[in-house]
This record gives sequence, structure tokens and C-alpha cells, in this order.
Amino acid sequence: MILRMDRVAIDLPKPKNPSPNDAAAIQELLGGKFGELSTLMNYTMQSFNFRGRNRLRPFYDLIACIGAEEYSHIEMVSYAINLLLTGTTKRGHDPVPAPLSNATDARNSYHFIASGQTALPMDSMGNFWTGQNVFNSGNMKLDLLHNFFLECGARANKMRAYEMVSDPTARTMIGYLLVRGGLHVVAYARALEKLTGVEVTKLVPVPELSNDAFPEAVQFQKQGLHLKLFSFSPGDYQQAAQIWTGTHPEDGQPLEFVNGAIEGVPAPDLDEEPQLNAPGAEGFDPQMFMDVAKRMGINPNHPSKGQF
Amino acid sequence: MILRMDRVAIDLPKPKNPSPNDAAAIQELLGGKFGELSTLMNYTMQSFNFRGRNRLRPFYDLIACIGAEEYSHIEMVSYAINLLLTGTTKRGHDPVPAPLSNATDARNSYHFIASGQTALPMDSMGNFWTGQNVFNSGNMKLDLLHNFFLECGARANKMRAYEMVSDPTARTMIGYLLVRGGLHVVAYARALEKLTGVEVTKLVPVPELSNDAFPEAVQFQKQGLHLKLFSFSPGDYQQAAQIWTGTHPEDGQPLEFVNGAIEGVPAPDLDEEPQLNAPGAEGFDPQMFMDVAKRMGINPNHPSKGQF
Amino acid sequence: MILRMDRVAIDLPKPKNPSPNDAAAIQELLGGKFGELSTLMNYTMQSFNFRGRNRLRPFYDLIACIGAEEYSHIEMVSYAINLLLTGTTKRGHDPVPAPLSNATDARNSYHFIASGQTALPMDSMGNFWTGQNVFNSGNMKLDLLHNFFLECGARANKMRAYEMVSDPTARTMIGYLLVRGGLHVVAYARALEKLTGVEVTKLVPVPELSNDAFPEAVQFQKQGLHLKLFSFSPGDYQQAAQIWTGTHPEDGQPLEFVNGAIEGVPAPDLDEEPQLNAPGAEGFDPQMFMDVAKRMGINPNHPSKGQF
Amino acid sequence: MILRMDRVAIDLPKPKNPSPNDAAAIQELLGGKFGELSTLMNYTMQSFNFRGRNRLRPFYDLIACIGAEEYSHIEMVSYAINLLLTGTTKRGHDPVPAPLSNATDARNSYHFIASGQTALPMDSMGNFWTGQNVFNSGNMKLDLLHNFFLECGARANKMRAYEMVSDPTARTMIGYLLVRGGLHVVAYARALEKLTGVEVTKLVPVPELSNDAFPEAVQFQKQGLHLKLFSFSPGDYQQAAQIWTGTHPEDGQPLEFVNGAIEGVPAPDLDEEPQLNAPGAEGFDPQMFMDVAKRMGINPNHPSKGQF
Amino acid sequence: MILRMDRVAIDLPKPKNPSPNDAAAIQELLGGKFGELSTLMNYTMQSFNFRGRNRLRPFYDLIACIGAEEYSHIEMVSYAINLLLTGTTKRGHDPVPAPLSNATDARNSYHFIASGQTALPMDSMGNFWTGQNVFNSGNMKLDLLHNFFLECGARANKMRAYEMVSDPTARTMIGYLLVRGGLHVVAYARALEKLTGVEVTKLVPVPELSNDAFPEAVQFQKQGLHLKLFSFSPGDYQQAAQIWTGTHPEDGQPLEFVNGAIEGVPAPDLDEEPQLNAPGAEGFDPQMFMDVAKRMGINPNHPSKGQF
Amino acid sequence: MILRMDRVAIDLPKPKNPSPNDAAAIQELLGGKFGELSTLMNYTMQSFNFRGRNRLRPFYDLIACIGAEEYSHIEMVSYAINLLLTGTTKRGHDPVPAPLSNATDARNSYHFIASGQTALPMDSMGNFWTGQNVFNSGNMKLDLLHNFFLECGARANKMRAYEMVSDPTARTMIGYLLVRGGLHVVAYARALEKLTGVEVTKLVPVPELSNDAFPEAVQFQKQGLHLKLFSFSPGDYQQAAQIWTGTHPEDGQPLEFVNGAIEGVPAPDLDEEPQLNAPGAEGFDPQMFMDVAKRMGINPNHPSKGQF
Repeated sequence: MILRMDRVAIDLPKPKNPSPNDAAAIQELLGGKFGELSTLMNYTMQSFNFRGRNRLRPFYDLIACIGAEEYSHIEMVSYAINLLLTGTTKRGHDPVPAPLSNATDARNSYHFIASGQTALPMDSMGNFWTGQNVFNSGNMKLDLLHNFFLECGARANKMRAYEMVSDPTARTMIGYLLVRGGLHVVAYARALEKLTGVEVTKLVPVPELSNDAFPEAVQFQKQGLHLKLFSFSPGDYQQAAQIWTGTHPEDGQPLEFVNGAIEGVPAPDLDEEPQLNAPGAEGFDPQMFMDVAKRMGINPNHPSKGQF
Repeated sequence: MILRMDRVAIDLPKPKNPSPNDAAAIQELLGGKFGELSTLMNYTMQSFNFRGRNRLRPFYDLIACIGAEEYSHIEMVSYAINLLLTGTTKRGHDPVPAPLSNATDARNSYHFIASGQTALPMDSMGNFWTGQNVFNSGNMKLDLLHNFFLECGARANKMRAYEMVSDPTARTMIGYLLVRGGLHVVAYARALEKLTGVEVTKLVPVPELSNDAFPEAVQFQKQGLHLKLFSFSPGDYQQAAQIWTGTHPEDGQPLEFVNGAIEGVPAPDLDEEPQLNAPGAEGFDPQMFMDVAKRMGINPNHPSKGQF
Repeated sequence: MILRMDRVAIDLPKPKNPSPNDAAAIQELLGGKFGELSTLMNYTMQSFNFRGRNRLRPFYDLIACIGAEEYSHIEMVSYAINLLLTGTTKRGHDPVPAPLSNATDARNSYHFIASGQTALPMDSMGNFWTGQNVFNSGNMKLDLLHNFFLECGARANKMRAYEMVSDPTARTMIGYLLVRGGLHVVAYARALEKLTGVEVTKLVPVPELSNDAFPEAVQFQKQGLHLKLFSFSPGDYQQAAQIWTGTHPEDGQPLEFVNGAIEGVPAPDLDEEPQLNAPGAEGFDPQMFMDVAKRMGINPNHPSKGQF
Repeated sequence: MILRMDRVAIDLPKPKNPSPNDAAAIQELLGGKFGELSTLMNYTMQSFNFRGRNRLRPFYDLIACIGAEEYSHIEMVSYAINLLLTGTTKRGHDPVPAPLSNATDARNSYHFIASGQTALPMDSMGNFWTGQNVFNSGNMKLDLLHNFFLECGARANKMRAYEMVSDPTARTMIGYLLVRGGLHVVAYARALEKLTGVEVTKLVPVPELSNDAFPEAVQFQKQGLHLKLFSFSPGDYQQAAQIWTGTHPEDGQPLEFVNGAIEGVPAPDLDEEPQLNAPGAEGFDPQMFMDVAKRMGINPNHPSKGQF
Repeated sequence: MILRMDRVAIDLPKPKNPSPNDAAAIQELLGGKFGELSTLMNYTMQSFNFRGRNRLRPFYDLIACIGAEEYSHIEMVSYAINLLLTGTTKRGHDPVPAPLSNATDARNSYHFIASGQTALPMDSMGNFWTGQNVFNSGNMKLDLLHNFFLECGARANKMRAYEMVSDPTARTMIGYLLVRGGLHVVAYARALEKLTGVEVTKLVPVPELSNDAFPEAVQFQKQGLHLKLFSFSPGDYQQAAQIWTGTHPEDGQPLEFVNGAIEGVPAPDLDEEPQLNAPGAEGFDPQMFMDVAKRMGINPNHPSKGQF
Repeated sequence: MILRMDRVAIDLPKPKNPSPNDAAAIQELLGGKFGELSTLMNYTMQSFNFRGRNRLRPFYDLIACIGAEEYSHIEMVSYAINLLLTGTTKRGHDPVPAPLSNATDARNSYHFIASGQTALPMDSMGNFWTGQNVFNSGNMKLDLLHNFFLECGARANKMRAYEMVSDPTARTMIGYLLVRGGLHVVAYARALEKLTGVEVTKLVPVPELSNDAFPEAVQFQKQGLHLKLFSFSPGDYQQAAQIWTGTHPEDGQPLEFVNGAIEGVPAPDLDEEPQLNAPGAEGFDPQMFMDVAKRMGINPNHPSKGQF
């Protein structure tokens, strides 16, 4: 079970140049074979399906808490896409001037037909994410090897998406994910080390280019975010700490296990796009709801809670 | 962002007759077009992509907290599948006696080749879940109508899965989901009512057969679980309560909004299946980890926390 | 545009042994790569897309009227599947005795979960028909060659389905389709002959086994149904007759062009399956509708019209 | 069974600016999840598979005759695409000057490689239509609810396609479909009303923007085309009239049931594209066929018949 | 079993204008339904699966040796794509200047994200090749008819790809494939002739435009490459010669069977693309390997062998 | 380019109990995500696409020659499937006794409808192989890591297929592939070692169960087949020897590089299945061909050549 918070991991700047084709490229990081939906669903299913977890609890806990973090990653990528798409067609209610005419030449028409200029679980070519992307043999050594490979592949994709798109919204998000995904690379390498004694962490970075080449990633590394494994739990999964020990293979700083989630910031509000009837409901009277709420004793200001 | 707990919603009895074909059928409720992955990903993406959420906060909160609950549903279905598959092949390390020979005639060979006799994100025919199952037009009225239809379709599938499989593991899980999914049907109907004034809740139940025909569902209804909308959040999404008002359309009892998650029980441990090398790692020494843990001050008993 | 009639091509006997797995096999003839949906959609799209139809009218007319006939073929296959599935689970309203328990071991679970024991646009493995099965290069010679090959492939599949299933419902339907599809083989061969002078009809039959080996087909051949090309139109597509000339390559009888459709019989009524809530609506009062109808002057007996 | 006519529903103007990318966008209305192939195949299969049709004849008839109309809709969308593609590459027989060089940058290369600059059963991203788009639970209430949702989703897609493309060919076609599809929305809502008593028609329009905002749709509404349910049959399906009663929920005008099809116009001829060898067959002598036809007594002028 | 040679069939000129969209178009010839992977896998599987090969040896040998040649065709198409992609983004190690920014607007983003600016087994729309493209009924007449159709369809695609792309790299490759694929068209037509007596070779060319219209193809015809069927074997498959008899249907020159492979040229080396870390491994010291090689007696110059 | 030989790697015993469901299971090793088609196409494409091959020749040569061997693996799996399917339906020409009635309950109906009781490029659930299974980032370290993981995953699948099927045909084939695939695991591990210095070979075996547990594998190991890397080339790819150095990580025996292919045995002849018209062509006169051959000087005994 999960508890969801109305907060996202980091604050994203508004795009300098909203762009449908930039958004289309970033979709690879959401719904691609190596996108965040793949990491989320791999680790989630692996944790549900883990056999012998009492005997191998630290490995189970590691997979579970990394899986929990991935939820915040699909969230970050989705928000980056949404921001890149907001305002890219002409706002207004009248269909006659063809407010969506831009979309005809855009790479991904689903953003304008199937969604309201927002993210969908698909990749950079508009192919939808599929459960075939989940690998879960049940053999822990093989599953950990897979996860290590998956994170390296995901890292390569992030690097290339960064090289395609220069907008700060996308790059801030990618910088963050390079750091956190880089931490996951090391975590699975460390798990293999604990299991086999082979120094798998020495294989990193894969590909060879370091995260240090990405200024936005460097900012997050300065906050130590490449060192802290969060439990993303109110109190469970603490034996992951038994794997997350020692120092980082690239800069030698000490690794740290943190109970709970990253603090985060409130989830951003997305502007309405009336030409898409998104969200529509224009005659709706929120005041009526407010009045009801007051009578029910609900705080209408909807306070967002912080870290546990 | 989420916080994950090492707990599941309800306690599942062990199967009377573990059965690969029963497990194969139950997969429809996990990875089918109307399975729990579809409800999870629909509401999750709709919440990330919601435009104008400040103006329409109660609807956003409703979708977000139902989406958060769905995580516990993919978990319950997965555990039911896993329990139905556990022990269905002959245990042992020696491949020569063909310990998996049962699997050759089973409907779903992926359970034995691609996974370690555990769930995968696929349906009852072994077709994998796809992101095409996510509908998110961005028009709130249309999205709510979709969600209402999706929950009705999901309900029909649960009813049929119940009629296919008589094992108590599966039926307890389905009974729970019929009640909770039934609540989601009413919730989206109520949201449409609040938005349009049309009495959509009077359409339920769809199909016409009531949950009262399912004894396991009746047990959960007696606990009032068809009346309580949980926030599945440490404190957010409370304006959903402004929609979840009045009485239940079928039995007239008052609806109730509950902050937090259902209490749940600890996640069950799944037996090892050595013939699948699941999990393998047989030479691994957990004591070594325990010793490290003690030195690190981690409680090796891995206490599971309750409801917030 | 079409006009639809509430009639089907031939009368199908009730199954001797209704069987989910027989029904599953017959799905290949509906939604398989070489199924009737493929022939229907190939010729329909080819006719919409035909360039230069004034210059090449007889070829256009031929493709159009064969395409129109294919609608009656998807109908016949669907009804055969529906009859084979009717009554294969235990009738009743109570879910507790697991009335669908048969379905757990059936090859195709979609018949019981996604449909109400009826046909879906999928093949014998439950894979859904796809528009990729449509070939339409726009080059008439290549498209005709494709159509000739497609009909030969479809014929091979029908022969094999016949050899798999011995129930008279299925075999009557297949016998009919072998004859009509066999006619389409000859029609496209004849079109290639008219276009190129190469005696393509001499290649038939492909595979080598004659329709004469199938007693049910022989019955339809005795009615001359392998000789008559119907326009399946109230009056259009008559220049197809310019291609459908001469004699049949296998028995030497004269070919004949017929304006209109085969006479057919009323569409059969399918029994209700209450355990699937199919159709449900049990409290509905048809008398009320009858009374309204009488006042509106509609004949409530719903007379089915014959051939034009 | 059907009778096909060599006529289409309405006359389409020639495009002002033929455009491959406009054509690519319009494909969504043909082969998209909410395209006309989906409505056609949903209602066609639902009618073949309808259980208990004698008891529920008006509902069966309604689904059957709407299904029959959808054939004319896939036809209209296909012709619009074909017209938008005609002439978009350089005409001629010589491949050396790269007459298809435009196509290299077009969004949908299948239009130029797999077809002869014509429509294929795919969506705006070139993904092919699939039978997974057919929903048919067999429970009539659930199927009607699906159909109502499907038509609303289809309406949203048409509105967005209209906003993407300003060419009159596309917009005339979309205006027509908005009116006829809008009628189908009301028809399924009315069916749910007759079945349940819930005033579902009051939910329309979904999305909230009225058809009145689309000038081309307004032209067709002036002809009363939003009020007339055609049987698209020579005489069957008349009990659909028992559902199609009362007045239109948006303008209060009386609804009308019409026996037969809309009158329509002759199907347009599409220009040849020699650079695609479409149709090729350049040495073919139609005069030879004409002579044969005269001897056979076939009217070579191929008269198109009107409404029944 | 195969023996692979580090040689390719012909020498390809460097592109005049490397172009991602040209490369994207050419992918149809690799991974499209009618691409070289389809011909390769069709004939390969048909040869593995051939029943009764002793009785029908010449046909088996024909299919086997054409299948062997197709390997060199997937190779040629892949190299053409690779050359068209080489150098299309900005070379360098620093990600900050967005060296892949070109790729954001390219038709096929997989070339830049999933591969290192190289070919993948997909078509011109980025849809991946699938085993569904293999047809193998086991009935030899039907399989030969399929192969004849497949080669004609493949020829049409090559002609259209030629018309889309004018770069000499692509056109040289296509000219070669038109000649060799054209030979395969004739070979399967001849096989059908030997089997049935029907003069199928008289149907060629399909489409009607001759290879003589393509100057690059004419160059290869001048070398007689449309006349020579190679065994692509060190000594097997010689009975294919019994089918490959007589003269070419288009120019009347005598057909010739050749033992072994076309001579070919060394496989080209592809430039590194450091911005993609392709191949990376920059600190690797090849000299170390050279030294080892010398001690092992391996010729470090890696001599490529010629024709057998 | 390749030269194909009419020989297969090893001699397969005839099945003791031919079985469609055993054959269906073995399909996973041909067309599954981790099947031999995946290894073949991964290494083939990676070798075509290798950038900087002059600098990194030994790695290129390694991938190329392993890729060449994989062709013999798809061949072995296909023949095993074909033998398991031969004779599983009733032989004869008459369709009336339903000779394929067995097939109706078989897990994979494509074996009887789409093929002539032979292999198709699909997996154990009848899902077709797809080019999405090819990974080729262009970064050599990442690609080698992928290949290492792919081979480990393939090994797990072989182990499980072995445990499902006890027929000697299947197990002999699997034993061979476990040994050769096991060699490929070590080869990619060794390549990573040469590149990075990390002792990746110490991770093997993955899963933990040794090949020694499989008696058929042990037989092939006794022949040293786990030690010999063949070039599968008449003379190229010899620098692979620079990677394939040292001793085997499991038994410490010296590794050996061998120029050319394994010797192999003649490809087996598959019995005809007349009830499938496979191959049909029953009136065909091979003597006629023999006579022609003699006049052409072709040896009609079709001698199979041995190793180069």
C-alpha cells in the first residue's frame, strides 16, 4: 500500500520555449523501454513477487524502496512534458481559426488528440509502454543483474535526451534523474557485490561519460543527492541500509540511508487550455463546493504536507 | 511522491487447490484492459495531467486518492496470483525429473519461464498490459465519464473471474475488490452528478447483479468498506470529501471520507521454489547482514508500521 | 454506403457438441491474418482508394462487390462461433457455484471475460485483428495478385479449420465459405488473366486438394454457388460481369453474374446466458415498447425482407 | 448481409491545399481508437452477438442500424484522406527526379510506400487499427454505456481534428460526422434512458462545446440531419424507432426515424498517380471490355442508384 | 549452419547529404513488412521447415540459397542507413551544447536514442519488424505463390524508396536490390512454372515499370547480375539450378547458376560518434591487444577473404 | 555475406513422444524475448552497426562470430520443434475424419493452421518475435553488458524449458545450447573484463545452478564444446581470439579459438503430412528434374559438404 503526497521531488522552471517536439522527445524517459515506467513497474512487480524475502530481506527492501522512488520519477517526467506542451497551441474557445494547426506538423499528434497537451505512457515515437518491459525471473542474481543493466540503459537514454533538448525545464528534470538514477545504478551494483563478491561498482559509469559533464546534475550532487538512499516509506524497508554501505565509487564520499522521502515541493498547477476543452467545466461553481466544505469542516486551502 | 508501506490491504487465505489455470484467469484483473493496472495508471496520469486543478480541486483530489488506492489493488491481485501459483510444480534442485512438466499444459507458460511462478503485468491470455489502456482527454467531464465506464467494465470482469474460480484465495481478493471497485463506481458517478446534476448514481449497479450476490463481498460490506473513501495520503486530497457526500445509492447508508489508508496487514512471505532457482542465492549468509545491521543500529526485525 | 438486412446467408444447424475450444479454433476464420475480416477490409479499402476507376471500372466493380459479400462472411463465422459457445457454461444467476468454471481451462478466456460467450475480432490464439492485414499498394496488378494470394491462403486456413472441428455448425459454415471463397479465388485469377493474358486460373486449386473433398461444400456446389458472382448491391457494380465470364476452371460449368444478394435466411436469435448477465435487463418490459410501437404504426413483428 | 451502393453520403469539395500532414491527422478519425472503424466494428459485432434479441428487439435494431451507418462514415473519412493526398507528389513516370521526395519529411510514410497516396486503417501516428478496440461484454446496459462513452470520445477527437486542419475537404467531412456522430451520442443516451429511467441525454454535449460552434456542422443541422435516424436497411431494424422518440436535448426539435439510407451522391473518381504506378495498367484497353459488355447487355454507363 | 564473411556485396558511395529522414525512409527496406528481414526470415524458416525435401529437392535448394542471399541484403540496407546517419549530429564530448538537437525534429528518434545513429530492425515509421511477417503454410505451391507475391511487393517498396531519396548511397543500394530482388521474383515465378505449367514469369514486371528505368539498376544488369543465381554456399543447394533454367523473361538472356557467393568488398568502417558515446571505450589500448595477437600468431591486419 | 551449408550442428534423436504442447514450450527458445532469434539479431545488427571497428577490432570480431553461430542455434531449435510436431495428427488425405482434431486442444494452434506442423518465429505463448528485442545503443560497454545479461537470461529460459520437457529430442538440443550459450556468457564476461578490468566472469553461472546438473550438457562438455569459440567464418573474425584467452571460470580448462564452423551433420529430412497438404505437389515428377540435372551436369545426389 502507498500513501500519496501532493508534492513533487523538485521545482521545475517554466520552459523558455515550450515545444511539442521537445516534449515528444522527453516521452522516451517516461514510456520508453528504458523509461521511468519501466523502472517503476520492474521493481514494483519484483517486490510483490519476491520469494524467500525473510531470508533475503535487505535485497527485498532495496528493491522495494527504489521502486517507491520511481513513482516520483514518472511524476517528474510527466510534469516536464506537461510544462513543455502548455501554451504551444493558440488559446481560445472558437474552433474556426484552427487553434491546433501547429499540431499537424508536430511529431506526436496524440498529445493534441488523445490528451489535453499532456503526457501519456508512451515513448518518443508514440509507441505505448508495455508490460513486456518488466523482467522478473524470480532468480535474485539474474534480476539484480537485469536491474543494473536496466539502470545503465536508462542512464544512456537520459544522457541522449539531454543532448537533444536544451530547455531548462527538461534539463533540470534530467539532471535530477541522472543523479538519482545514477544512485540506483550503484545500488544494484552494490547489491551484486554483496551477493557475489565481484566488484561490479567498478564498472560504473556506463556509458563512460560522467554525470559531472551535466551542470544540472552537478547542482544536485552538491546537495549530496547521489549519496542518499531514501526509504520512501514511513518506516519500512530499513534493511536496505545493509546494502547501501561504504563510499560512492566515483567520488569516494560516504553513502547514507535516509528514512522517508525527499522533502519535495507542492505539485504545480497546469494552465487551462480552452481550445482543447481541457478541463472544460467552465460553468462550474467552486464556491458552492467551498461552502459545503466549510460546513463539513474541511480546510479549503488544501494544505500540502511535507516530509514525514 | 509516495510513501510505501510493507503492508497489504487484507489477509488472504492460502489456496485450497493451487492452480496455474486459476492463476492465469486472475491475471485479467491485474493486466487486462479493465484490470487494476489500468485503473491505477488512468487515475495516476489523469492526476499528473489535470489542468486547472485549483479551480476544480475536489475533482482532482478525488481522482488522486482513488489512484493511490489502486496501488493496493495491483498488490492484492498480484499476491493472489502468487499464492495460486506457489507449489504448483515439484520442488527440488534436480532438473532431470522435469519438475516443471505440469507447466507444459498450463494456459500461461510465462508464469514458469519468464517469472518464478509469480504475477506479470499481463491479462488472462498472456497479453501484456499496454499504455493504450490509459484514457486522458483532459476534458474533465469526458474523463469522469470514462472512469465511470472503466469501473463498470472492471466490475463486470471481477464478477466473471469470481464465477470462473472458486478458490478462497481468489474469491476473498475479488470480494474485496468488488466492494472497493464498487465504491469507485459510485464515486465517479457522484462526481458526474456534482458536475452536471444528472443522477448518474441511479445507473448502478452495472451489470445489474448486486454485490450482495457475492458472500465474500458481503463480509467486507458489513465492515462498511463500501462507504469509506480513504485519502491514501498522510494529509492531502481532502477536498475529495466534498464529492463523497450523501448516502450510498444501493443501501442508503451514509458515505464517509477517511484520512489515511486502510490499516492492512503485513505483506505475506512467499515460499521459495528451488526448481526455478527462485530466489537462488542459497549460499548467502543472512547472519552476516544481521551483524552489520546491529552495528549500524538498524532493527533487524523489520517492524511493519500501521495506518497513519 | 450500405443497406443492411436482418438476414444471414445460410441456415446453420445447432451444434451437436457446443465447445469452447472448437469456437476458439474457428476464430481464426474471423480475425486471423487470413480471416474474413481481412478479406472484408482489404477489398473495402481497395475500393475506397481505387485510382482511375472510370478507366478500369470492371476491376473496381469486381473488388467492390466481392468486398460487399465479405460482410456476410464475417457474419456467418461470427454466428457459428456464437452457436458453438452458447450453453457451454452452467446457466443461472448465482455466482457462488462458479458457473464459469469450465472457462478456466478453455483456450480462449476472452470469450468468457470480454464477451458474453460470443465472437470477437481475434484469431485462434486470441490475438486481435489488425489493420496491418490490409494490403493496398494502389498498383492494380499488384493488388490483384495480393488478393489472389490472400484468397488462396484463406482457403488453406478454412481447410485446416474443417479438419480440426467436426461439429456440423462449423462444417456447414466452412463448406459454404470454401465454395464462396473458392469463387473469389477464381475471380481474382480471372481478373489477372483479363489484365495480363497469363492463364492464372490454371493455378487453382491452391492447395491442391479440391473442394470436392468436403461434403458440405459439395452440397453448395450442387446449388451452383461456386458459379454465381452476386453484386451484393441494389444495382451498382454490374461491370464486374465483364470479368466474370467463361467457365469454371475446375468443372467447366458456365460462370454467371447475379444482380443483388443471395436470398439468405433470418438472422438467428441467440439464447440468453444469465450467468454472464448477457443481456441482463431482466426487469425490462418489452410490452411497453410494443404499445408505443403500435401507436407509432410500426409493425412489431419486425418482418425480415428477402432478396432485392 | 449488406447491399452496397456506389454512392457516398455527401459531396466533398476538392482540397484547397492538399497536404500529407493534414491527411495524416485525419487518419485518427478513420483508424484511431475512437475512429469510425471502431464505431463500425463495435456495433457490428455487438449486433451479431446480441443475446435475447427477441425480448430486446428495439435495442438490437438501434445498434444494428447505427452500425450500418458507420460504414458510410469510414467511407467519408477515407475519401477525405484520399483527396487530401491526391497530387501531393510530383506526377510522372520517371523515378530519377525523385517524384516522392516530399514524402521523406511527411509524418506518415505509409501513405507513400504502403498505399498509393490513399487511406489505410491506421491512426494519426500510423498505428494500425486493432480489434482490441471492440468492446462487447454482452451485458446490454454496460455495452450501451460503452457506446455512449465511445461516441463522446469520438466527438472529442473530431473536434480536435477540426481544430488542426482548416482545409474545406476535411472540415466538410468533419462537420457532417459531428452531426451524425452527435446523433449517435443522443441515441445511446436515449437507449439508456429507456432502459433505466436516468436522464442520460442531459449529459450532452460532451465535451461541453456545442456543435453550433462548427459552421459546417450547422449547415447539416439546418437540413435536420441531427434529428433523423436512418435505418440504413431496405426494411429491417424498424423497432429502433421505439427508442428514437421525443425531442433533441439541445434544440428541442422532434426526432424522426427514416426508413432506408441518406440519399448521397456518386462516389468520386480519384486521379491517377503514375509516379506510384497507381493504378498502372496503362496498356489496358477498356474499349475491349465495353464491347464485351454491350454484347452481354450490361449498361456501360454504370448507373448509380439513389435512396431506396 | 553458416559461415560469415567480413565482406559486403557492393561498394556504397559516401552520402552527398547525410540525412536522418532519408535514413528513416530507407528503414522500410530493412524492417518493413516487405523489407529484407521479411524475405530473409521467410525463406530461412521455410527451408528449416520444408517437408519432403528429398522428393522436392530443387525447390528446397532454391528457397535455401535465396534465403542465404537475403542475409547480404539486410547487410546492404543496414550499411546504407548507417552511412546516411553518420555525421548528422554535431560531433563532440560535451553534452551542454545539445549536439543532438537536430534529432528532436527528425522523423525517427530511435536512431538517436536507442541506437548510435545506426539501423534497427524497424520500418519507415519506426514500427519494429515482427515474426508475423513470416508466411509458411507448408504447402509448397502456396508458399511459392506467397514468395512470388512477397518479392513483387518488396519490389514496389524499393521503387518508391528510390523515388523518395535521391542520395547516391541509397540509390546505389536500391539499384542493386532491384536487380537481385527482381531475380528472385523471376526465380519464384519459374518455380511455379516448373510445378504447374502456368507461365507465371509472363506476369513480370509487377508493378509494370521496368528496372530499366533505374540507372543504378541498369549498371548492375550490365554486369549480368539479373541473370546469375548464386548458391551462397560452399557447395550445397546445387539442384536449384534445375529450376533456374532458360532465359530471362524481360531481355531473353540466358540464366546462369553460380556456385558460391558474389565476390563483394570489405565491410566499411563506420566513423565514431563521440556525442553518442558510440563506441566509447576511449581509454582502451588496442596496442595491448596487438601485442597479445602477435604472440598468439594472429595476423593483426585481419585479412578479408574473397569468394569461395 | 554468408555461405550457408546444408548441415546442422548436431544430430537430434527422434522424439519418443511427439507432443504439440512440448513443441509449444520449446518455441520460447526460438522466438521468445530471450530466444535464439534475439541473440542472432542482436549480434548481427550490432556487428553491422559497430562504430570504430578498426580501433576495437577484437570486440567487433567477437560479436560477429558469435552472431554467426546463432544462426545454427535458430536452426537447431527449429528442427527440434519440427520433430516434436511431426506425426502428432492423423496422416491422410481425407478431411472428413477430422485428422487435425487433436489440434483443437493444443496450446498453439498456429502450428496447425499457419504452418505445416513446424516452427514459427514466436514464443511459448504464440506471440511473435519482434525487433524490439534488439538492443544496440552503440556504446560498446553498454552493449556488451546487455549481451552478458541477455545470455544469462537466455540460459535461465533454457534451464526451465529443460525442466518442462523430458523428451530426448528437446533435451539433446537444450543440452547443446546450454553449453554453447554458456560459452557465450563467458565470452561477453571476458570482453567486459578486457575492457574494464572487473572480473565479470566470476559472476557466472547465472542462475546459480551449474550446467553440470544437465546430463546432456555434460556430454557436450566432455567434447570440449564449452571451451571452443568457433569463428563460423572461412577466415575472418580471427581477432576474437584476443578476447577468448585464459581458462574457463568453472572448470579451469584452457579456452580455444577455432577457425571455421563446427563440423555438424546433414540436415534431417522431415516426413510429409498429407492431411496438411504439406508439401502437397503430389503429382510432381522428380525424375523429370533428375533427367534435366544429368544433362546439365549437376550431381543429383546433392552431396553435403563438411567443415571448411
